[in-house]
Amino acid sequence: MRRSRAFIPTTKEVPNDATLPSHQFLVRGGFINQQGAGLYNFLPLGKIVLEKIRTIVKEELDMAGCNEVQLSFVTPIGLWDRSGRADAMGKEMLRIQDRHQNDFVLSPTNEEAMVELVKNRVTSYKDLPLNLYQINTKFRDEARPRYGLLRGREFLMKDGYSFHASTEDMIREFDLMEETYKKIFTRLGLDFRVVQADSGAIGGEGSKEFHVLADSGEDTIIVCESCDYGANIETIFDNEEEVDALNEKTYEELQTKEISEKCSCGGNLSFKKGIEVGHIFQLGTKYSSALEANFSDENGKPRPFEMATFGIGVSRLVASVIEQNHDENGCIWTKETAPYTINIMVSNIKDETQMTLGEELYLKLLGENVEAMFDDRKERFGFKMKDAELIGFPYTVIIGKELDNGLVQVYDRKTQEKISVKTGDIYKHIMELI
Amino acid sequence: MRRSRAFIPTTKEVPNDATLPSHQFLVRGGFINQQGAGLYNFLPLGKIVLEKIRTIVKEELDMAGCNEVQLSFVTPIGLWDRSGRADAMGKEMLRIQDRHQNDFVLSPTNEEAMVELVKNRVTSYKDLPLNLYQINTKFRDEARPRYGLLRGREFLMKDGYSFHASTEDMIREFDLMEETYKKIFTRLGLDFRVVQADSGAIGGEGSKEFHVLADSGEDTIIVCESCDYGANIETIFDNEEEVDALNEKTYEELQTKEISEKCSCGGNLSFKKGIEVGHIFQLGTKYSSALEANFSDENGKPRPFEMATFGIGVSRLVASVIEQNHDENGCIWTKETAPYTINIMVSNIKDETQMTLGEELYLKLLGENVEAMFDDRKERFGFKMKDAELIGFPYTVIIGKELDNGLVQVYDRKTQEKISVKTGDIYKHIMELI
Repeated sequence: MRRSRAFIPTTKEVPNDATLPSHQFLVRGGFINQQGAGLYNFLPLGKIVLEKIRTIVKEELDMAGCNEVQLSFVTPIGLWDRSGRADAMGKEMLRIQDRHQNDFVLSPTNEEAMVELVKNRVTSYKDLPLNLYQINTKFRDEARPRYGLLRGREFLMKDGYSFHASTEDMIREFDLMEETYKKIFTRLGLDFRVVQADSGAIGGEGSKEFHVLADSGEDTIIVCESCDYGANIETIFDNEEEVDALNEKTYEELQTKEISEKCSCGGNLSFKKGIEVGHIFQLGTKYSSALEANFSDENGKPRPFEMATFGIGVSRLVASVIEQNHDENGCIWTKETAPYTINIMVSNIKDETQMTLGEELYLKLLGENVEAMFDDRKERFGFKMKDAELIGFPYTVIIGKELDNGLVQVYDRKTQEKISVKTGDIYKHIMELI
Repeated sequence: MRRSRAFIPTTKEVPNDATLPSHQFLVRGGFINQQGAGLYNFLPLGKIVLEKIRTIVKEELDMAGCNEVQLSFVTPIGLWDRSGRADAMGKEMLRIQDRHQNDFVLSPTNEEAMVELVKNRVTSYKDLPLNLYQINTKFRDEARPRYGLLRGREFLMKDGYSFHASTEDMIREFDLMEETYKKIFTRLGLDFRVVQADSGAIGGEGSKEFHVLADSGEDTIIVCESCDYGANIETIFDNEEEVDALNEKTYEELQTKEISEKCSCGGNLSFKKGIEVGHIFQLGTKYSSALEANFSDENGKPRPFEMATFGIGVSRLVASVIEQNHDENGCIWTKETAPYTINIMVSNIKDETQMTLGEELYLKLLGENVEAMFDDRKERFGFKMKDAELIGFPYTVIIGKELDNGLVQVYDRKTQEKISVKTGDIYKHIMELI
């Protein structure tokens, strides 16, 4: 992409309500902008990142044997009456009325619709297991939408639902999804932990959360330093006030607090702050029983499906990458999430030699399908450099004064190191980096 | 995909309200199911087709220099008050209230939001032109939702908006988009016509529609048999009653009607029935003036953007392909839209030789990234054949009794021809077909 032709409205202005780095830098870097309370638009750079994350989620789920579907976003209230959640979901579930005064909701989750879809269409144990998922818009009417993409009202979520003939098979799928989720978050380049969790309004027995570690995380988790044990503090402290008080504390404050429990492996436990980006639940027959969704077992007897459900906050992940990867100058995208891997910056676009090299390199990279941005704007070097740091391209190739000595610089956004490379070696150097 | 593990709930039952072939066959073939009036779920096969169409639309637009964004689906009513369309859009625009009694709408289109996005972010003629698009959910509260995906309430639409410093440049982009749309519909394998059209509620001066020719089309168009002239009859007949009367007529009835106009090229004009799948508008400054969205021209003078807008009915295209391509047995997908190109059908799965060849061929095709379905179900041959016709795979490889003579059959869904191929040649034969 030529920067002079791109729509990337970067700005110095910090939105009034933006307290978190991801909120500030995603708006300032021209990735998103606010349409209304808890409502965000994705601009070209933000849309690219969102689609990269969506693609990784889809690839790993498809490889694990899941089937993608897409349910309607507006769903009839009747679905929710039948499961008993019309009331239980409270005000977060936004009710709407169409022109004929029929009642609908903006889907906050889709257990009911998915059970209705499978009911009477999957009738035998022979057709099980089945794991259906969608990556689709959700709406939850948060009382206080805040933190940019982290607690918006409209968001993109991957929600998956599996159907089984036995509890054992459901648990097998639950474990498979845990492994699949780990692959997804690993590919995204995130430092994360899997922890024991409460099931909340979704219901069911066992549940696990996936937390991206970040000082700004809303949740407090306890993790073992020696094994892979981890738990949301909600599952450890019975007292709600104690949980709230811990969640109010900053990461630094938590480090001074002793933990009386001992991990069963004998390792030290410590507090971490986390952003919940995934949640998997063993549902059992809660929804299939309520909605009378049965299959015939080996003896021809009708039985309700054993179910599990699996969620990933896809648009929330865009912000989570930045909460974990940023500095005071802006975003630091991981390789798999960066909107463009290489930024080619011509220091002085009036210098024909600089521009010629820039153009050559840009076209060569495009030819190799390398995602390259070509900053060909007539702006000062310092301005363009700040802009590149704010956006957070992993690597910037600086074509400037050193070109007289046959050299260009390669700037690494993460390490902030700048190294000189001979112009003849730059293409090879880039291909090795990426 | 192994058919025994896929969720493709085909059925003989025709929905009560399904009068059109696409509605009947998409439901019967397990592509979609109805969630509520004008609300549809896409099941795995339907989702694959939808994504194939979305991908082609995106590829062609990106190649034409457009930038993809994603605006929030729920938008504040204030946007629509400012443009004056809060009233003009009527009851099709569904109004909703959040928990704080603030008013929002489910986006039926996004001119206002897009102008607000560009306003104050693109400030100079140097940053123009700009063409932003999204492929996103829309909602229109139709009084009588019907015809399955053709006139639903919630649907997937590509809506693009371009911004220019002059009328000339806007018209250049309008022409470029006409060419781009032609490329898209051609790649999809559709027989379509571009026609002069009314601008309706969107407003503006010039507009063109893209119609997929199909006897069941809701619109009546006039096309020249000798040149590329075409027009929606709305632009030709002043009398609304006459237009309605013509639209009521079937394709056959229209063929007996004489057309008094003569094409300027001297060619014969004839009536056709069409499904509107695209619409492009020259907007001028209607929205930019109303929303005070200006740029500085060469003399530093503020001027409202010249705009154009471009729509494609993405989910409607799924149905349009079938309205144009079907027979009494079911769907006939075009190569670019088929959910799977090759269907491998083992006639008797208890016959080890048949199954071995089926498995071998299936895995070999998967290895070459050929989209293959492997019908390994324990069902009668006739049942599986009917199922394949209903779904509409372009080619079915039948591994049956003829295997004893070293032959398999390849069935072409469109021509209904079945030819015998030596088992040793089948892989090569398939690769030549696709």
